[in-house]
Amino acid sequence: MRLLPVMEGLHSSEALNPSFLQAFFQRVEELAARPSDFEVALRGVMIATVFAEPSTRTRLSFEAAAHRLGASVLTVADAKSSSNAKGESLADMAKVIGGYADLLVLRHARDGASRLASQATDVPIVNGGDGRLGHPTQTLLDLYTLHRAWGDFAGRTLGVMGDLRHGRTARSLVWALAMLQVRIVLLPGQGLDWEASFERRLLDRFDYRLRWGKHPLFGDWTGNQEARILEPKGLVQKSLFLEDVPEVDKLDALYLTRMQVERGADIGQGSYPGITPAQLQNPLLATCKLLHPLPRLAELPPSIDDDPRACYFEQARLGPVVRQAVFLAMLRQDRWPLPPLTPVPTGNADHRLGPCPNANCVSHEEGLSAPWRLIGSKRRSFLCAFCDTLLQVEYAGCRSTNKVHALSSAAAHRIRPENLQPFLSRQDAERAGYQWGG
Amino acid sequence: MRLLPVMEGLHSSEALNPSFLQAFFQRVEELAARPSDFEVALRGVMIATVFAEPSTRTRLSFEAAAHRLGASVLTVADAKSSSNAKGESLADMAKVIGGYADLLVLRHARDGASRLASQATDVPIVNGGDGRLGHPTQTLLDLYTLHRAWGDFAGRTLGVMGDLRHGRTARSLVWALAMLQVRIVLLPGQGLDWEASFERRLLDRFDYRLRWGKHPLFGDWTGNQEARILEPKGLVQKSLFLEDVPEVDKLDALYLTRMQVERGADIGQGSYPGITPAQLQNPLLATCKLLHPLPRLAELPPSIDDDPRACYFEQARLGPVVRQAVFLAMLRQDRWPLPPLTPVPTGNADHRLGPCPNANCVSHEEGLSAPWRLIGSKRRSFLCAFCDTLLQVEYAGCRSTNKVHALSSAAAHRIRPENLQPFLSRQDAERAGYQWGG
Amino acid sequence: MRLLPVMEGLHSSEALNPSFLQAFFQRVEELAARPSDFEVALRGVMIATVFAEPSTRTRLSFEAAAHRLGASVLTVADAKSSSNAKGESLADMAKVIGGYADLLVLRHARDGASRLASQATDVPIVNGGDGRLGHPTQTLLDLYTLHRAWGDFAGRTLGVMGDLRHGRTARSLVWALAMLQVRIVLLPGQGLDWEASFERRLLDRFDYRLRWGKHPLFGDWTGNQEARILEPKGLVQKSLFLEDVPEVDKLDALYLTRMQVERGADIGQGSYPGITPAQLQNPLLATCKLLHPLPRLAELPPSIDDDPRACYFEQARLGPVVRQAVFLAMLRQDRWPLPPLTPVPTGNADHRLGPCPNANCVSHEEGLSAPWRLIGSKRRSFLCAFCDTLLQVEYAGCRSTNKVHALSSAAAHRIRPENLQPFLSRQDAERAGYQWGG
Repeated sequence: MRLLPVMEGLHSSEALNPSFLQAFFQRVEELAARPSDFEVALRGVMIATVFAEPSTRTRLSFEAAAHRLGASVLTVADAKSSSNAKGESLADMAKVIGGYADLLVLRHARDGASRLASQATDVPIVNGGDGRLGHPTQTLLDLYTLHRAWGDFAGRTLGVMGDLRHGRTARSLVWALAMLQVRIVLLPGQGLDWEASFERRLLDRFDYRLRWGKHPLFGDWTGNQEARILEPKGLVQKSLFLEDVPEVDKLDALYLTRMQVERGADIGQGSYPGITPAQLQNPLLATCKLLHPLPRLAELPPSIDDDPRACYFEQARLGPVVRQAVFLAMLRQDRWPLPPLTPVPTGNADHRLGPCPNANCVSHEEGLSAPWRLIGSKRRSFLCAFCDTLLQVEYAGCRSTNKVHALSSAAAHRIRPENLQPFLSRQDAERAGYQWGG
Repeated sequence: MRLLPVMEGLHSSEALNPSFLQAFFQRVEELAARPSDFEVALRGVMIATVFAEPSTRTRLSFEAAAHRLGASVLTVADAKSSSNAKGESLADMAKVIGGYADLLVLRHARDGASRLASQATDVPIVNGGDGRLGHPTQTLLDLYTLHRAWGDFAGRTLGVMGDLRHGRTARSLVWALAMLQVRIVLLPGQGLDWEASFERRLLDRFDYRLRWGKHPLFGDWTGNQEARILEPKGLVQKSLFLEDVPEVDKLDALYLTRMQVERGADIGQGSYPGITPAQLQNPLLATCKLLHPLPRLAELPPSIDDDPRACYFEQARLGPVVRQAVFLAMLRQDRWPLPPLTPVPTGNADHRLGPCPNANCVSHEEGLSAPWRLIGSKRRSFLCAFCDTLLQVEYAGCRSTNKVHALSSAAAHRIRPENLQPFLSRQDAERAGYQWGG
Repeated sequence: MRLLPVMEGLHSSEALNPSFLQAFFQRVEELAARPSDFEVALRGVMIATVFAEPSTRTRLSFEAAAHRLGASVLTVADAKSSSNAKGESLADMAKVIGGYADLLVLRHARDGASRLASQATDVPIVNGGDGRLGHPTQTLLDLYTLHRAWGDFAGRTLGVMGDLRHGRTARSLVWALAMLQVRIVLLPGQGLDWEASFERRLLDRFDYRLRWGKHPLFGDWTGNQEARILEPKGLVQKSLFLEDVPEVDKLDALYLTRMQVERGADIGQGSYPGITPAQLQNPLLATCKLLHPLPRLAELPPSIDDDPRACYFEQARLGPVVRQAVFLAMLRQDRWPLPPLTPVPTGNADHRLGPCPNANCVSHEEGLSAPWRLIGSKRRSFLCAFCDTLLQVEYAGCRSTNKVHALSSAAAHRIRPENLQPFLSRQDAERAGYQWGG
């Protein structure tokens, strides 16, 4: 049996939207409540888990989900050593394994691997973590854990702590939380903050603003009592306006993360932010759920595992059932329909903006030109359609007049969209045969 | 479907007892005779095999058993590289995978790993080999092979040969054979004997005595015609009393083992004990079954594979059906009950005897204080509840009087059990605030 | 359920024959057309895939086939690190795993591993690629792809290009194509030709002749416009006789292969033969199907993937269904019979021709004497029954007279077959106690 997938894959949390999530959470609850109704939901279906980075929990969680639905499982636990040894491209690998299986779960070291692979095969790809970019099923599982704890998301405040630079789980979750209008307190370790462009993109996309808030505990964690806060512009909370840098009085959840040493993380002089039993007495955390994607290191001591606010093992335990719902969404829309995911444009290579500046972008390894997609209305910002790296251009060429203008000029604004050729520099434009038009 | 396990796991052969074994062997025979009765016995059940040391045969044998009972299988063939790479603790790993699966089979390099893991999760752990300590399913399979060959165990003599120091199979089997009152002839390679404390513990526990016996073949094997023999005190065999060191006239079975180079075994100057076709002509071995846990090296030449006394491939072939019976015992007591295993106390860390002196004890890697358990009636001997390492104390403190006494003193004997605080040295006691009471 | 295998395994394409193939192709078509008829064909059957060399696609393809037929799968994705670490022989490994499973799929680095393993176990072994010798299921899949494209094989011309020296797929396919009377154009990279003895053996066995043909494209590919052509002696094609080295006017298929760097391939000064989009315009290739066992490197640029002549992804996609037919042939002759495979003699070690000169022959690693088998009628040529290495002897001893003669002598021809003792040299014969008889 080969089912026609209605959804073509799940690559990043950008695809999530409120109506999808609401129905998705309900599906998860049905799966948990009546597992026997779904025992043969994927009978005859073949699911391949292709993991090019080491992982135990994520792979097993997907495989447990597949077995619970009656699917057969093909496993590549060490894709790196086998395919790479023979120099095969990711695209070919996806095409070939997509010929054996009805759905691929992919984990890969490069940013954007899931999106690239999905273009090579007809079967849906579910991103099991690629590079520092995406981990949407972890995000679904984090969101579902919060949904169980909170009910509604609106008006909630979540602190995200630790290695924001190398970890994909925090980026992926925060994007989805912004879509859900949650206030986010950023508590990165020293030197472990994420790139500014990610934050700028988030602020633009969800009409958020950046503020500062303070609390003594923040100082314990990050060395700085003041923390950046991302919040919906629409949200007015009194306590935040009384002073220049108001005190934060409550965290509804704290998302801790491990230092990703295997991706080059290094805390240098400072200490890595973690929580202690004593800190749990602080009123800031009185009703604060503790989440962690696991595995954990010293940031989360086992002595607090029995605290009722500790949700991380429940979070892990929910992995399979959440992934069951993902498989059903991908493969059984006929029987168990869900609202559509938000499509993410695939971009195009015609923009000729050159190679992606992100050294970890999957395009380099595959020898492809990065496909760029225009975002926003200012004709200035482009994202690599694989890895979401932001590129801002300063010059606009017109394909009809063969002239290039500063983006801020009136001439630039008169270029018709279909004639627009962006350039990073005047030299690039001149090298491409465009004349300077002012 | 999630079945309530009645037995919480199988960690070492100490848990075995005669009434369990008798019923267990019968279950194995039912499984072998009527496999179709059990085809769906574990339908809907998820079994995870988590192997942190390389193994082919043991893992496949467990997985074949799971498939034959209709269970689903999650495999981690290289747990070391994936979880360890991220620095995860064994306890966390067991807790997380225990959230996905209904039973875990665990292989681990550290002594006591199985017991530690079982305390972290609600699902039963079956020890697939941990450190140099335990391999109870191999023992069940060895015992079942002997049961088929011998019928009754009592009065039988088995020689155990090779690397007793590094191998877990020999230790694990001999413990169970002592429980079954079998006489055991020890034939270790030079420098490959096991630690004295293991033997002393066995002699105490099963009311065994140590004697010497001789045979020219023993000299061929170990360089010494005289061998240590462990036998039940109740057992009187004439031939053994005629001289100081009587000649052994018959071995009913010989358990050969491979040199465990990967655990640091080194035979140095001597030659590793093995069997030759010529030796098989010796009357000592006339009806001697040859067993070997495999894989074998030069100690067991392929030219004797067709000898009717060679049982080792039959032994291997019985692996899956024996492990089917183990899974049923753990997960389906409701339908196929067995007498209970003997509980092994978990010990407690209150004894404050400090870290376990065994460098390979799992407690060190996990950063835990070793839990100690008192054995025997002399208030002297404690075992690490993870790795069975023996510790003998010389001083007894009284928590009520705050005085410490020599264990041999009358004062020491008057301390009430609930007040007893053992110490390895006077200094330890004084450092803990106890005064010398003579 | 344990089914009695009627076929004892599939080790090399020498076992294939036209009547088997015709029925086999029909079985594949049934499997593709009515998959639901076969969903439980192997229910209760255990298939083990034991891969001692890295492989993703081949292993998954076999496992997908097993799952589609309802079989259970045991996987050893990295057999080398686990068994080899403990020094186990291949024969023991096959015997033990053959005790757990009903069929073994084996990939191994040594030539002849599949044949050796099959002698150690009662269950059928399917060769998933051993050394540089065999890959019969890849050949079946290549043949089936050609069958779909061509219908009949007779009179067709196929070019085989690239690394003929290290690749097993080309050797294995060409042998089968010769059996089917296909004309073969050899286009090896510089220094990457196969050994002369393979070709000589093929010419003898199938009554083929060697000719030369030319084409400008051959020069582009190999640096030499003239190429060796193997063709049935019975086949007369006019254009090939007009000149000494006639121009080839048409290729019906081109079989490209990757340079096997992991087996030591090195192209040195030259360039590795591959195809370009421009070359596809050449009339020689007007109706030429392009096949490749994948993974590919630069020899096959992705830009031609959409050309209707490109068959390689279809070829990959057919892998599982072809392997389903192989499993049925091995395990379900009772229900779905096929004509027998051609038996390949196992040879015997009595010929005492010494060790196999092929350093990669599995006999060396296993410490076995190579079994030799006589081929042809001249009493001169022997093949290693494991790895097909050819040995030609010059001297014949008579076990009755104890004399040794030059093979060309009349005396040599008078030796009765049962008395024939071949020798590679007079010294060998004299060392064995034979006297020179002229």
